[in-house]
Order: sequence, then structure tokens, then C-alpha cells
Amino acid sequence: MNNFTFYSPTYFVFGKEQEEKTGSYIKRFGGSKVLIHYGGGSVIRSGLLDRVKASLTEEGIDFLELGGVKPNPRSGLVYEGIKICKENKVDFILAVGGGSAIDSAKAIAAGALYDGDFWDFYEGKPVDKALKVGTVLTIAAAGSEGSGDTVITKEEGMLKRGAGGEALRPVFSILNPELTKTLPAYQTACGATDIMAHVFERYFTNTKEVEVTDRLCEAVLLTMIKEVPKVIADPNDYEARANIMWAGMVAHNNLVGVGREQDWSSHNIEHELSALYDCAHGAGLAVVFPAWMTYVMKHDINRFAQVAVRVWGCHMDFTHPEETAMEGIHCLKQFLTSIGMPVTFKELGAKEEDIPALAEKIGLEKDETMGSFVKLTTKDVENILYLAL
Amino acid sequence: MNNFTFYSPTYFVFGKEQEEKTGSYIKRFGGSKVLIHYGGGSVIRSGLLDRVKASLTEEGIDFLELGGVKPNPRSGLVYEGIKICKENKVDFILAVGGGSAIDSAKAIAAGALYDGDFWDFYEGKPVDKALKVGTVLTIAAAGSEGSGDTVITKEEGMLKRGAGGEALRPVFSILNPELTKTLPAYQTACGATDIMAHVFERYFTNTKEVEVTDRLCEAVLLTMIKEVPKVIADPNDYEARANIMWAGMVAHNNLVGVGREQDWSSHNIEHELSALYDCAHGAGLAVVFPAWMTYVMKHDINRFAQVAVRVWGCHMDFTHPEETAMEGIHCLKQFLTSIGMPVTFKELGAKEEDIPALAEKIGLEKDETMGSFVKLTTKDVENILYLAL
Repeated sequence: MNNFTFYSPTYFVFGKEQEEKTGSYIKRFGGSKVLIHYGGGSVIRSGLLDRVKASLTEEGIDFLELGGVKPNPRSGLVYEGIKICKENKVDFILAVGGGSAIDSAKAIAAGALYDGDFWDFYEGKPVDKALKVGTVLTIAAAGSEGSGDTVITKEEGMLKRGAGGEALRPVFSILNPELTKTLPAYQTACGATDIMAHVFERYFTNTKEVEVTDRLCEAVLLTMIKEVPKVIADPNDYEARANIMWAGMVAHNNLVGVGREQDWSSHNIEHELSALYDCAHGAGLAVVFPAWMTYVMKHDINRFAQVAVRVWGCHMDFTHPEETAMEGIHCLKQFLTSIGMPVTFKELGAKEEDIPALAEKIGLEKDETMGSFVKLTTKDVENILYLAL
Repeated sequence: MNNFTFYSPTYFVFGKEQEEKTGSYIKRFGGSKVLIHYGGGSVIRSGLLDRVKASLTEEGIDFLELGGVKPNPRSGLVYEGIKICKENKVDFILAVGGGSAIDSAKAIAAGALYDGDFWDFYEGKPVDKALKVGTVLTIAAAGSEGSGDTVITKEEGMLKRGAGGEALRPVFSILNPELTKTLPAYQTACGATDIMAHVFERYFTNTKEVEVTDRLCEAVLLTMIKEVPKVIADPNDYEARANIMWAGMVAHNNLVGVGREQDWSSHNIEHELSALYDCAHGAGLAVVFPAWMTYVMKHDINRFAQVAVRVWGCHMDFTHPEETAMEGIHCLKQFLTSIGMPVTFKELGAKEEDIPALAEKIGLEKDETMGSFVKLTTKDVENILYLAL
């Protein structure tokens, strides 16, 4: 096990009707001038935004609003939010929505306390300070409600990049599974795939002897395998929604990743897919992940056999462990298909002829690699994408 | 799943040599006048205390010392610590040791900001504020390094009682598994039993549909079952020590308990054993837990069958699920015996004739009960203790 630090200071408030306490939590964490940041459509139509605003008004908290966040959130709106914050001395950003609204809120929070271009953070500059961020979560997916990460797409060149820092962890996050009930099955499944991917990126590691982290990873995956099909069958299944929503947080506050190398290649590859096709991040991951697994499996057959046996319930083939490893990947694909996810380029609506450009766009120099479990060159990325046809 | 809040703001620093950073973490969390609180013996002999003091000196941090914490820590030393803090304007307590040193430090931290008798908190008064506490952990067991709980024994009547509050969660905890290598096998096993008990107290619940929490509980138990025998066989196995140490934190910061009723009866029963016989808490739990399980099993056969199958790898007897449930309890006893724990009154050195007094001392009125999975009267507690003979 590697040395590590683990810090997840977010105050999580979980359950029915908890969004009505939003104002009191902002007060508790010292917010007095708030920017409420959200997408549009459903948070307005459902009355959620009005309920949240009412709870702020009840506490006498002054607020401004900035809606319009899109999936794969863009830098344009971030610049707008930063301007509002600086001009109005905003001291707290409240994101109401899913990963996109939260990621955009984090970008604004970092940019509001920075004199330069906020995009610097997405080019590698660490985020040392940021306005406080609180969240009211409406989709179980990104895990941004408990993480210190944010991903933004720059319109110029459609560059999708991530930034991070402990200052970006929300001070509180309100998770009411009821708010996710109106989510269409497709988006629910995309979110579930993202959650499972957050575990896989941490599970496939070269660090040995991190049993406790392995087991915690498997706990999240086993939960998803049991609960997601229930929600696809019945969107109103509160208990299943609740299990998935909490699993989404656990999958990404890094508890399931401590003490080991992680490998975020599949997320990086997918970012190029969703940047080019504007497809849902989860759908892109459903296509990329099984292909990546198939490509790298031989690097550590036993690790893939472990997940096949422990998570997918396969029987170990002790004579041909690679058969077990492959069976696990097959189970994952079957599972993704069963919940309505694409697992091929064709199903995603992506094009074979774009593959070289997609691989190129990751931006690796000649001989440069990314990833740690298996180091990938641009050529490897191409090969993985061809496996996904 | 029940509504819940989850808040674990402790900054965990895990790995080799990390105690050398103690001073810098105290500084980071705003401590300037520190009381270092510890037991005696091993932290001095091993040179740990000197290394920690050197790191404080290096950062120019002023400190006082109070050693002498005993296992099942006593109120007398807490009063002494509170006096020191008040007289010297101490603003930070650093516990160096195991659960006893940390629990005693938390009691001092709460009492130092309170005008009344600190024992009020152990009689049920919530702890609203406390001095900041940091820890350098030397034993994987109590989970006090990440929890908001503390247990103290009052000499008068040998009353062992708990208190809690979010203000008691340590601001940082340094966990170096190397520091646990010198721990004798018996104490290592006692600590491991305590860790597993912290999971069991949360696992046996009447709340349905909390799959994610169940799976996280099972993840910790599976880790312990794999790693503890390795450490008993080879005390220098760093990797196994590391897995156990982190599992001990995860088992008790309440991540594995959210969204459900919990049942701390076994801990309460055990507290009377260790108060009377001054035995190790873990050893007492090894005796009480299998007896409690046997007594309450019929209340929910399927839940006991679940832990038997998922954790102990038993095959489900679909015709006689109670056989599977019992097999799970048998596996637990075998495991405890294999790591050197007592599982009977006799092995513990406890006496049958003390049973009525032990049960009485829990302090339940006639018809009053404790516990939630199964509500226990004084008579039930007696019956459980007789099962442990």
C-alpha cells in the first residue's frame, strides 16, 4: 500500500425533503451572498429551484442566479459566472443540478478568487483557494458532490479538461434520491455507468496488497449491479435510487482509491468522444471501458479474474484464468447493454473514420504515454477505439 | 434507507514515517499551545514520543505533556488534563497512542471548554464544543481516530460510559502502520475484534434496503478475515498491518453505518465486563458477540444467512436457512479462536456467579430495554451471558 492522505470534509445531508434545509446549511457554512448556479429545464419545471430559493429567503440570505449550464459544461458560462461573482462580491456558490452544474460552479468558485484566466487551472495549475461551494444534487453520476474535481469544455477547439484541489470539495452536499425519480432511464443508466467507471479507474492498479480498497471498490460495484436494473424497471423505486445515489458519492470522494496508483485513461479517452459528439459522458464510458479492459487485460490476468469472480460471480477457471478474466468483461458488456447503454461505436453514433483524430486530440507527443496500469501511446488509444467498433 | 447526515472531516495522513509531520499538521489546523496526551511504556520506549515532540519543536510549537493513560481510561486523569488545559490556555490536544489515549484526549478537549463536570457528557449531555484534537495512532482497534465518540470509566462505581459529538472528531489523524508492528499478538487480535465488532453493531439492523452500507460493512469484514491471520503469523507484515489499520478507521467513522438503525447492545454489555475484570475490550467483545448473535439470530435468519454466505463463504442451505445462519456464527467463533481470542467466560477469566450483577449494572429499569435490532431486558442480557459460558 502506498502512503496517502484522505480528506473528505463535505457535510452530506441525505434523504427525503432535505433540500428544504439548503438555506440553513448555507448559513451554517458562512455564506451570505450566494450565486445559485443551475442548468435549466427540469430544476425549474419540477419546482426544485423555487423550493431552494424559498429556503434561502427564509434564512434571509441574499442571492443571484445564473442558469443555463449544459451537459459537458462550457467555459463561456464560467467566465460569465466569475464576472458576476467579482462584481457582486459573491461569497458562496450553490450548485443545483448534476455533475455539470457542480463542475461549472467549482470552476466559477476557483476563478472568482483568481486574477488570471480560470482556464489556467485546467491546464494544470493547482487550485489553492476557491469560494465555498454547496450542492443540491439531482443526478447520481459524476460524484462531483463529494470530490475536489471539475471538468470543463473550452469551446475553442472543444477541449475537455479537468482540474482539482481540496479547496473545491463542497462544504455541504444535499442528496435527496426523490429528486432523481424524474430522470429518464437513459440518463439514469449513463449516470450509473459513470459511477461504475469511477470505481474501475481506481481498481485497475499495479499497486499490490491494497485489499481494503479493493473490497470497498467491489462493494460499490456489487451495489450498482443489484440496484441499477431495479431503477430501470421502476423509476420510482426510492430505495434503489437511494442506494445508487450514495454509491455515486462513495465511488468518487476517493475512499475507494486510496493507497494505490490509479489509471484514468478511459476517462481521458472518453472526454474526446463526448467533446466531439456531445454524447453523454456515461454512454461514452460504456463504449470505451470494455474496449480498454480487453486491450490491457493481459497485463494482469489475475486482477481481471478477481473482479470477474468477486463482482460478477463468475466461477474461476484455474486452468485458464484468462477465460475468467474475459468472462468478467463480457458480463460488464451484457450488464451495460441490459440497462440500455451503447457498447459499440456504432451504437453511440460515433464514426470509425474519426478514430485517428480522436486519438490524436488527446494530445500525446510521439513516444509520450498516458495511464499507469498500462501506459498508452496514441497508437494504443487508436487500437482501443478500433476494439470498440 | 433512513435519512441521515454523514460528516467525517478528519484529515487522514496514512503511511510510513508520517508521524514526523505531526508539528506541521498541528500548525495547519491552528494549534499553538498543545497538550500531548499518552499512556506510557511503549510510546516512550520506542522513541515515538521523542520523534513527535521533535516535530513540534521544529515548528516552534509550545507544548505540555500528560502521560499515564490506562486501558479503559479513567476519569481521574481526565480531570487532571482539564485542569492543565484551563490553567495553561491550551488550544490543541494531541493524543499519541491507541483508543484509550484518544478517548481520554477527547474527554479533556470537551471538558476544557465546559464549566461543569465533564462527566455530564457521559451522562447524556451532547458535546457542542471542544478543543481541537489531533492523533498519532499506535493501535488499529477503536476507530477513535476518525470518530466523534469517546468512552471513559468513572472510578466511583467503575462506570464505563460513552459520549459523542461532531466537535470531537479529530481534525487530523496520522496513521503509520509501522507503529503497530511492536504490538503483541494478543493486543493485535483484540484490536481486530473491536474493528469487526464496530461493523457488526451496524450490520444487524431492522432497516431494509441499505445494500450499499451492507456491502461496505462486508468489505471491511472480508478484509479483516484475510489480513488478521497474516499479522498474527508475522507481526512485521507491513501490508497486512496497513490494511487492518485503514479498515479500523473505515469501520468506525460511520460510513458503514449510515441510513439505518444500529444496535450497540454488545458493546454496552461488554463495557460491564471490561469495567469489572479490566480485561481488554476486544477480548470481552469476542466473548459477548457470538453469544448475542446466537440469542437474537431467530429475529432475522436471512440477515444472519447473508453474512454467513457473503462474508464467511458458507453455502446457502435454502431448505434450512437457520443452519446457514448458525454456520456463520460458528465461523466467527472459529476465526476468533484462531487469532487467539477467548470466546467463553471461562477463557476470559470471567465468573458465572457475576452474571446477574453484570446484567444489573447496565442499569435498565424493570421493563426497560436497550438495543434496536432486538430489544433486550436485563433478563435477556443475563441469558446472553449464560450462552457465553
